[in-house]
Amino acid sequence: MKALTENEILEKLKDFEGWEYIEGALHAIFEFENFKEAFTSMTRIAFEAEKLNHHPEWSNVYNSLEIYLSTHDAEGVTEKDFELARIIDELVG
Amino acid sequence: MKALTENEILEKLKDFEGWEYIEGALHAIFEFENFKEAFTSMTRIAFEAEKLNHHPEWSNVYNSLEIYLSTHDAEGVTEKDFELARIIDELVG
Repeated sequence: MKALTENEILEKLKDFEGWEYIEGALHAIFEFENFKEAFTSMTRIAFEAEKLNHHPEWSNVYNSLEIYLSTHDAEGVTEKDFELARIIDELVG
Repeated sequence: MKALTENEILEKLKDFEGWEYIEGALHAIFEFENFKEAFTSMTRIAFEAEKLNHHPEWSNVYNSLEIYLSTHDAEGVTEKDFELARIIDELVG
């Protein structure tokens, strides 16, 4: 899988809300009602990430979840990252 | 709950392996076989953290889990952080 160019990434991001391109990755922050809700969403995402064999870099503190998506092997953002971002939006939205 | 002094923290840390005191928090990094194992441990920890009503600040990427424990209300490290660190060690160890 090939890394997308910055132009390609920015063009694709127009179809997304809340995601931005920073530090060579797709980045979003989600806020939930509490820890339980945040972790419940993380669990849903975890199963899909594992199925895709494509895993997020993510941080959680209490009700907040910060996610970075990039493709290590391609040293950048690929279609796979957008695929996972789309799934995350469906699960969290 | 009162924040412990740095001396108290360092004394207590002698009973722990792999934890250190940095950036005003107890800090540890755990490595697992793969994402599934890492997230399984996170899930076990999440249930205990929720029960304690004391939540970690944690990051995961693939098989790696980084944890910071501190007590927001006390603006430092308290007994509660050591309690959670002990539980994490039992769950992960």
